Amino acid sequence: MKNIFFIGVGLIGGSFAIDIKNKYPEVIIHGIDANETNLDEALKLGVIEEKAVLDDVQNADMVVISIPVDATEKLLPTVLDKISENTLVVDTGSTKSAICKAVEHHKNRRNFLAAHPIAGTENSGPKAAISGLYVGKTNIICEVEKTTFKLQEKALDLFRAIGMRIRYMDPVSHDKHIAYVSHLSHISSFMLGKTVIDKEKNERDIFDMAGSGFASTVRLAKSSPAMWTPIFKQNKENVIESLEEYINNLQHFKELMQKDDFSDIFNEMENTNYIKKILNGIK
Amino acid sequence: MKNIFFIGVGLIGGSFAIDIKNKYPEVIIHGIDANETNLDEALKLGVIEEKAVLDDVQNADMVVISIPVDATEKLLPTVLDKISENTLVVDTGSTKSAICKAVEHHKNRRNFLAAHPIAGTENSGPKAAISGLYVGKTNIICEVEKTTFKLQEKALDLFRAIGMRIRYMDPVSHDKHIAYVSHLSHISSFMLGKTVIDKEKNERDIFDMAGSGFASTVRLAKSSPAMWTPIFKQNKENVIESLEEYINNLQHFKELMQKDDFSDIFNEMENTNYIKKILNGIK
Repeated sequence: MKNIFFIGVGLIGGSFAIDIKNKYPEVIIHGIDANETNLDEALKLGVIEEKAVLDDVQNADMVVISIPVDATEKLLPTVLDKISENTLVVDTGSTKSAICKAVEHHKNRRNFLAAHPIAGTENSGPKAAISGLYVGKTNIICEVEKTTFKLQEKALDLFRAIGMRIRYMDPVSHDKHIAYVSHLSHISSFMLGKTVIDKEKNERDIFDMAGSGFASTVRLAKSSPAMWTPIFKQNKENVIESLEEYINNLQHFKELMQKDDFSDIFNEMENTNYIKKILNGIK
Repeated sequence: MKNIFFIGVGLIGGSFAIDIKNKYPEVIIHGIDANETNLDEALKLGVIEEKAVLDDVQNADMVVISIPVDATEKLLPTVLDKISENTLVVDTGSTKSAICKAVEHHKNRRNFLAAHPIAGTENSGPKAAISGLYVGKTNIICEVEKTTFKLQEKALDLFRAIGMRIRYMDPVSHDKHIAYVSHLSHISSFMLGKTVIDKEKNERDIFDMAGSGFASTVRLAKSSPAMWTPIFKQNKENVIESLEEYINNLQHFKELMQKDDFSDIFNEMENTNYIKKILNGIK
């Protein structure tokens, strides 16, 4: 690998670029971004080494696409049109069905690997890019069998070099499960933030009362709407299903409170403490 | 101060005890706990120095009560019966109205200071007690005017010595606001955990897909049901109100998704990003 092009140089693409450069100093990191300010900032911060435009991907050994998932869905076929025979193209989107579907009949489908690194922070943009973001994190690869074996190998070597664990999954299962373990958390957090802001906006200093518990639960409400709106749109059915189940559980909790059934409230919480076991190992 | 008695030697009382001992080495830390195993553990861990029983509070310069709020409501009048003239009694419960009401006509009401230190972790018991838990955190004092001035002074010196900022508030306002900025977060987190566990319990290894975002949002679902059930019970009306508003907001979000109004979904999230400003300064 000599020339790697990052389309999107924010938190996900930028952090990937930093760690690849650390592990492979001989690689030249090129950046492409619809937002010129972002691109200049990434260059200034040293996240990328060269600015580039879309046509330049014909010179790429690898292209990493980390932009909102609706933009990926549109752009990916064009990228596959422009690459050369041995170029590996990877996306990092939080949905996989629509993206895989967008290129299922593309003549260069075998140059593409669909990935979802389960990593991130609530921050965004090139300044949010950090070294070590992917260490110990899971990278979910979808439809691995549809990618040329040699390019699979290259991608996996690289993911492992920056510390990732690999899991394989079909896109439909990915989107279904990720709605529960990721997308729903974002909605629960955004709506918690909204509820408290709406209630307390006329109260002075009320957030002095907010502690670390509130901060933790509402952290994801800082996330980028530009990134998350298309995720909810592409994964609409699964997200609505998870949201309905969540609302039903909250409604049930409320009804238990209304009828003073605090022994069942206790049980609900005690059963959910099982999450301790599940969270072991997640940082 | 020479003899301080901690009724309840878990996360809140225990962390308080550790920092008081650090700041005032001459103080003797006595522990009282309904759970003998807890008490032995606290002694073994050095959280307390002496085991004691309730009648011993007659020798206390100060008594700190950090037990579930329903137990505090019941026990506080008895503690006030047993103390001597100059003893300061402080509670640390997450609700304030019921506790203040339980002693409003007690002859020793002026020995009692109602406090709520906004600090904690999702862990519980003596082994969860840590040094530095209260540094930079807010301590909300209710009905300060009902406490003897000299005892107020003693309490405030001590709270400041362990790093706390002080705020004053009436119990009714406290309970109303804390429902939004603390109690609701716990329910949203518990029900998120429940939703995901219910959905995924038959799936092997699905939690490999859960990242730091999920872990953060669901962290409070590790909290102690024994501590939280009585909080929800005592603050029932405020909690139900906050829960209804939260459910309405989630329902609205779902409806926007159902009618493909993703531009309003974007706006909802963008407006809630305002939480970034609010969270500045909360660790």
